[in-house]
Amino acid sequence: MIMEYEDDAIVIDCGVMFPDAEMLGVDLVIPDFSYVYERAEKVRGIVITHGHEDHIGALPYVLPKLQTPVYGTKLALGLIRARLEEHGLLGDADLREIQPLQELRLGAFQLKFFHVCHSIPNGVGIAITTPVGTVVHSGDYKFDQTPVDGIGPDFHTLGELGGRGVLAVFGDSTYADRPGYSDSEQVIYESFESVFAEASGRIIVSTFASLISRIQQVMEVSAEYGRMVAVVGRSMETNVPRAIDLGFLDPPDGVLIDKDDIDHVEPEELTIICTGSQGEPTSALARMANRDHRLIRIQPGDTVVLSSSPIPGNEELVNRTIDRLFRQGANVVYEKIKPVHVSGHGSQEELKLLLGMLRPEYVVPIHGEYRHLVHHARLAESVGIPADNVLIAENGDIIEFTSTSGRIVDKVPAGYVFVDGLGVGDVGAEVLRDRRRLAGDGILIAAITVDRRTGALIDEPDLISRGFLYEPESSDVLDRAKKLLGQTLESEASTEPDWTYLKSKVRNTLGRRLYAETRRRPMIISVVTEV
Amino acid sequence: MIMEYEDDAIVIDCGVMFPDAEMLGVDLVIPDFSYVYERAEKVRGIVITHGHEDHIGALPYVLPKLQTPVYGTKLALGLIRARLEEHGLLGDADLREIQPLQELRLGAFQLKFFHVCHSIPNGVGIAITTPVGTVVHSGDYKFDQTPVDGIGPDFHTLGELGGRGVLAVFGDSTYADRPGYSDSEQVIYESFESVFAEASGRIIVSTFASLISRIQQVMEVSAEYGRMVAVVGRSMETNVPRAIDLGFLDPPDGVLIDKDDIDHVEPEELTIICTGSQGEPTSALARMANRDHRLIRIQPGDTVVLSSSPIPGNEELVNRTIDRLFRQGANVVYEKIKPVHVSGHGSQEELKLLLGMLRPEYVVPIHGEYRHLVHHARLAESVGIPADNVLIAENGDIIEFTSTSGRIVDKVPAGYVFVDGLGVGDVGAEVLRDRRRLAGDGILIAAITVDRRTGALIDEPDLISRGFLYEPESSDVLDRAKKLLGQTLESEASTEPDWTYLKSKVRNTLGRRLYAETRRRPMIISVVTEV
Repeated sequence: MIMEYEDDAIVIDCGVMFPDAEMLGVDLVIPDFSYVYERAEKVRGIVITHGHEDHIGALPYVLPKLQTPVYGTKLALGLIRARLEEHGLLGDADLREIQPLQELRLGAFQLKFFHVCHSIPNGVGIAITTPVGTVVHSGDYKFDQTPVDGIGPDFHTLGELGGRGVLAVFGDSTYADRPGYSDSEQVIYESFESVFAEASGRIIVSTFASLISRIQQVMEVSAEYGRMVAVVGRSMETNVPRAIDLGFLDPPDGVLIDKDDIDHVEPEELTIICTGSQGEPTSALARMANRDHRLIRIQPGDTVVLSSSPIPGNEELVNRTIDRLFRQGANVVYEKIKPVHVSGHGSQEELKLLLGMLRPEYVVPIHGEYRHLVHHARLAESVGIPADNVLIAENGDIIEFTSTSGRIVDKVPAGYVFVDGLGVGDVGAEVLRDRRRLAGDGILIAAITVDRRTGALIDEPDLISRGFLYEPESSDVLDRAKKLLGQTLESEASTEPDWTYLKSKVRNTLGRRLYAETRRRPMIISVVTEV
Repeated sequence: MIMEYEDDAIVIDCGVMFPDAEMLGVDLVIPDFSYVYERAEKVRGIVITHGHEDHIGALPYVLPKLQTPVYGTKLALGLIRARLEEHGLLGDADLREIQPLQELRLGAFQLKFFHVCHSIPNGVGIAITTPVGTVVHSGDYKFDQTPVDGIGPDFHTLGELGGRGVLAVFGDSTYADRPGYSDSEQVIYESFESVFAEASGRIIVSTFASLISRIQQVMEVSAEYGRMVAVVGRSMETNVPRAIDLGFLDPPDGVLIDKDDIDHVEPEELTIICTGSQGEPTSALARMANRDHRLIRIQPGDTVVLSSSPIPGNEELVNRTIDRLFRQGANVVYEKIKPVHVSGHGSQEELKLLLGMLRPEYVVPIHGEYRHLVHHARLAESVGIPADNVLIAENGDIIEFTSTSGRIVDKVPAGYVFVDGLGVGDVGAEVLRDRRRLAGDGILIAAITVDRRTGALIDEPDLISRGFLYEPESSDVLDRAKKLLGQTLESEASTEPDWTYLKSKVRNTLGRRLYAETRRRPMIISVVTEV
């Protein structure tokens, strides 16, 4: 999101998206920043609301093309540093720490940060006062009255802003289709207490490495039940010491042990906190589920807790992990069985509460998929915002505000840029189309040698298939196709070979025959050698 | 599932599974029946509990190899006929109708069918009396006290069976992790009434084509609100007339209209029932969402109801469909927003109720994934079945019962057979591995021409890539790789070319270079022509 006023602009958050099932082979999806790059000289800074990947993950790809300061809270900057370091970009970055309640002037914009509760500590919303009015960006938030770190929602600032008058609210819509209030992190204690009271062996808790408050809770309950805690999994092993250093995680004295000492502790005195709550194939938990983890082998009596919700699209992976853990004799506790996870996003009543406190003239639902924006829009109308003042905007839409009006005035290109390995943007629609085709029916390569002058076939054609059919069993299908191709090409021999014609002949002949025999459409590539 | 006693055997149900995300390009998954085929002469019949695809869908693949009668209720046979007809197999099939409460002797087995409530009418469970005791197969069931067709659960037969003594229950576990009771189909009326009362334009209801009772409900509520009903989508247009013919669907007089007359009816007087509740890309609803349907274009004011739950793995497709419908201005009502769907499977209390009525000595949880079997096993233990008498079996496990014992004694191969197009079983682990590889990073074909005698390179190598990188933009990557390959092969020329060595040289040279430059690992195929 970019905000512009005359010669000044600020960017708010700079995240990644994870690829959906159709984005084959893609590692990450980042926004197309071309509109921002074209205005690079106007940009006074990138302001980060919190340290989740979907808010900071694109920085390593954007900063090299947009030299500007990055503003964030202590924890957010800590996580950004880690990301930039991995990309060897830390030296060049201008990172500036801000605090809740701090004010900051960036060109025409006067920013004030206020604390919000979310599934990572040290998150903020931002009130941005511009010459035409104040715009409030909610960040990701819920109204948790009893958060683990004791820092509740900043009702004071919100009330004050509302009293002074707010032009527009840009509000988190992720849970706009869920009625009521989201539960406080506090309810986790109860669920964990009951799990810990019942467990007789090791307890293995898997959660998001950024969910510091959850990690804190597991450590506290472990200490209470006389268990030591080991931390396992790459991002968990990175984040925990960092969060301790920065003061956001406070393990009870003596509770933490090294993961290499796991086997020296009695099962009933051990808790393991690990990555893998989304079933990610290379995570610690997935490795345990596959009996492929270097240190930990699941044994009957282990209790595994998935303290998370599957992110949409990950359900199959998560379910498979749960099944595999059960098969090895673990007792698996997951959200469906016990409330071992609560969301960090506010539900409908919280969204209304924010709007009620800020009483904005305009509402722009942000974050979440289209249906969530629609539900958020309906909530806004239900609390009295006129329908014309609720603006459902999608990526690329330009909203223009004056002190008396707000409307979507234009649309600029703002699609996705795919990151695959080291390539940023070299995988596009065409490459994905090919990958989908290859994934569906495989490939058939026809190697053909023809006489340079006569175009006559030299030797019979050779067919190589991959991902199409199992050759040892289906070689007759290919043999028949090869024979047909040979006959067709021989009858076609002419004085002057036309490669384009030849290739399309090969594709059509093979394609039709193989579809008739198999009802599959492998990609067909012909390699023609002229001699 | 096959049951054997000395020289007799029966098969219960014969279904398909739908491929998961890793089974690329696979259309259907059927069970490996080799164990059954080997005993074909013992098989006295295939007994079908109900007409869902996961219980009948493999018949067209199995019957040609296993000539035996198929027993099922009227509706199940009606649906089986449709399937067999599509495969041109109807002439050869021996289909025999059975009724609830009917008894049937098949070799050593005395079968008694009893009605169960499920999300398709005319479903049965089966009590199978064998020389060593009575085994009850639950079919798919819930205890719906107020079903739409008025035919409630057969408590009488269940009670009688329990009174006489049951050796083992094979019970549906699909919802074993859900507490309480599943809702009656009756609750759907209330939700639909409120949707119909609020809607001012057309109402489009998408559900499973086999969910006849839901279709009946939509028709009844439509009649009540003065709406005509059109049926759209291939399986819906097949099933509705068939269900009417067979007496399982009874549309109110004059409510049904032809889909081609849709445009002659006022929006507020029209309901459309269609396929696509799982977001299947070629379904009627997905086409509407993509503005690609021949007859129906979504317009603001339309209300779309998804009367279904996403089957795990389909969440992304369903969500995308919902978003697209919202984008076109429809109001979309789905399970999360309003209870417009209830499950056809019993929850924990119903599973306990069945066991309480039957009081079996042994329980074998069936249907559902592994975690559901575990939860069902726990429920069985909670109602007093000794843990040793609860047998969690997986595909291929052989359970041996005597009148006094039951245990898993052996395991036979019983994996999956993949159906892809016309091929049954020719797509196996290797083909899928190749497809995953191709899907992830694409393919690179290296065409190389060498001198037959000297092995010397003739011409520079040619590289063709698909699904790897976007060539017009990244041609320098390929140019560099081509040059490197040329140099490497030239330095390797020897008197006698060794193809295996040459191919591995090509693969290694290109693979290493491209991984270093792109961090991708396309499949590399070399096509070597000797001249």
